Amino acid sequence: MIEAEFIAALRALPLHPAARGLEDDVAVLGSLVVTTDTLVEGVHFLSRDPAADVAWKLVATNLSDLAAKGATPVGVLLNYPLSDDDWDRGFLGGLDAVLRANDCPLLGGDTVSLPAAAPRILTVTAFGERGIAPPRSGASAGDRLWVTGTIGDAGAGLAIARGADGPPALLARYRRPTPRVAEGRLIAGAARAMMDVSDGVLIDAARMADASGLAVTIDLARVPLSDAYRAWGGTAIAAVTAGDDYELLFALPPGTRPAAPATEIGGFSTGSGLTLTDDGAPVALPASLGYQHRAR
Amino acid sequence: MIEAEFIAALRALPLHPAARGLEDDVAVLGSLVVTTDTLVEGVHFLSRDPAADVAWKLVATNLSDLAAKGATPVGVLLNYPLSDDDWDRGFLGGLDAVLRANDCPLLGGDTVSLPAAAPRILTVTAFGERGIAPPRSGASAGDRLWVTGTIGDAGAGLAIARGADGPPALLARYRRPTPRVAEGRLIAGAARAMMDVSDGVLIDAARMADASGLAVTIDLARVPLSDAYRAWGGTAIAAVTAGDDYELLFALPPGTRPAAPATEIGGFSTGSGLTLTDDGAPVALPASLGYQHRAR
Repeated sequence: MIEAEFIAALRALPLHPAARGLEDDVAVLGSLVVTTDTLVEGVHFLSRDPAADVAWKLVATNLSDLAAKGATPVGVLLNYPLSDDDWDRGFLGGLDAVLRANDCPLLGGDTVSLPAAAPRILTVTAFGERGIAPPRSGASAGDRLWVTGTIGDAGAGLAIARGADGPPALLARYRRPTPRVAEGRLIAGAARAMMDVSDGVLIDAARMADASGLAVTIDLARVPLSDAYRAWGGTAIAAVTAGDDYELLFALPPGTRPAAPATEIGGFSTGSGLTLTDDGAPVALPASLGYQHRAR
Repeated sequence: MIEAEFIAALRALPLHPAARGLEDDVAVLGSLVVTTDTLVEGVHFLSRDPAADVAWKLVATNLSDLAAKGATPVGVLLNYPLSDDDWDRGFLGGLDAVLRANDCPLLGGDTVSLPAAAPRILTVTAFGERGIAPPRSGASAGDRLWVTGTIGDAGAGLAIARGADGPPALLARYRRPTPRVAEGRLIAGAARAMMDVSDGVLIDAARMADASGLAVTIDLARVPLSDAYRAWGGTAIAAVTAGDDYELLFALPPGTRPAAPATEIGGFSTGSGLTLTDDGAPVALPASLGYQHRAR
């Protein structure tokens, strides 16, 4: 099955109201926001990625989901497959670093052994103290679409991790993303919808529009690109179809400014679907809008 | 690394007070009890096990951890690797059944794709409404050791799943364990320590004694065995070293009766370590006390 089919089937099961119909990246249980992410070796990270960076990314991606809800990290659970000593020690070092960097302690977890030659599959579940928690589905027609930071750096970093030439700063954006926790708390108060950019700006914006029952337009010329990314030769279209940015994508009412630095890249309107422009001129959508999970 | 080494290393990281020093199977966050378990194809279940039974067991093992804390299930998160259609549909059917049987809805989760030929690795994180939550470490010298239900049936069921002859009732005990949620709520009020039997009575009792800073003695002749297990030819020593029972193991003050059906199988005393007797006569410990996770 593809992911969308499986999730549709899950919706036929008994669902907790906190599941929000499985439309969101988090569940809200009382004052807690809960999210979980799994990383698979060979799918979400490369076998040659340093174990410390895998640990960092595993925790950071979860904290990014909390950030998108304006939540403050409380702690994480870790589901870990025991491995060789070097990898385990490297992982522990990266885990220590990312927990300390985000003031987020360990709550517990489970360790398992794997059959020989199995790819590593790691899960973290993160708990946050609930803030305002804008849903993915709350955008209104006329709202403007904003994004924090710069887009595409992690996509360039992935190419560099795979062997392309490029600067360490871009590689670091892929391997050690910064969850926008402080920004999320500041922005959440005014945002009508918010999510993090994990699979790519285009696909994630399309998901926000779909969940909100709206159409969305993105202008490529407005997408914030870093100097390092431009110098590397990165394009706006490559940036918006690459994943792993872990920036915040959010909808604000027209005329409202975000409480943390961000860039306006488009807007919502009645209807459905995604339209791409470049400085106002229509641009055909690329064949792939971003990263989508597929059955093996 | 082996599991114990890895967990010792985790204790050097920033830990949340709710982690209870990683001595327990659950974290207690406010009014919530949280636990997580991962099942690995080829380690915790067999490739030929029906997908519906894997789903059942994945949820049931987590609810069993909640039961050991006298908690009432609130909901579960699922981390699921997309697979072939037949397996996915079978899994969804079993998931529906186990959620309905335990009045426990889905809260959310994450779906991922796997590289070709990778074993399936599935995680469930379960949330319960906190009850009295006896710790694993609360036994006192003089306390008696009790266990619910019968022991060894699941071990026989595993042998049957691997091709041995035997009745469907024993196979079902391995594939579709019943979390002792109602019993846990009833027993928790009086229990000074409680945990579920996942890796085997001997190793789990030894862990409870170790966490409590005590010695424990178990009498093989008192271990409750089912008629089906005896008829199958199962022995008490095989029963207490087999895992997957998911019965509740707990310490009660001497003279206290449990509020749900259970059998007294031993007791705690000052000192350390595990002693095995058979109708009071000393018995040598077996080479393996139960299931222990090992690095690949």
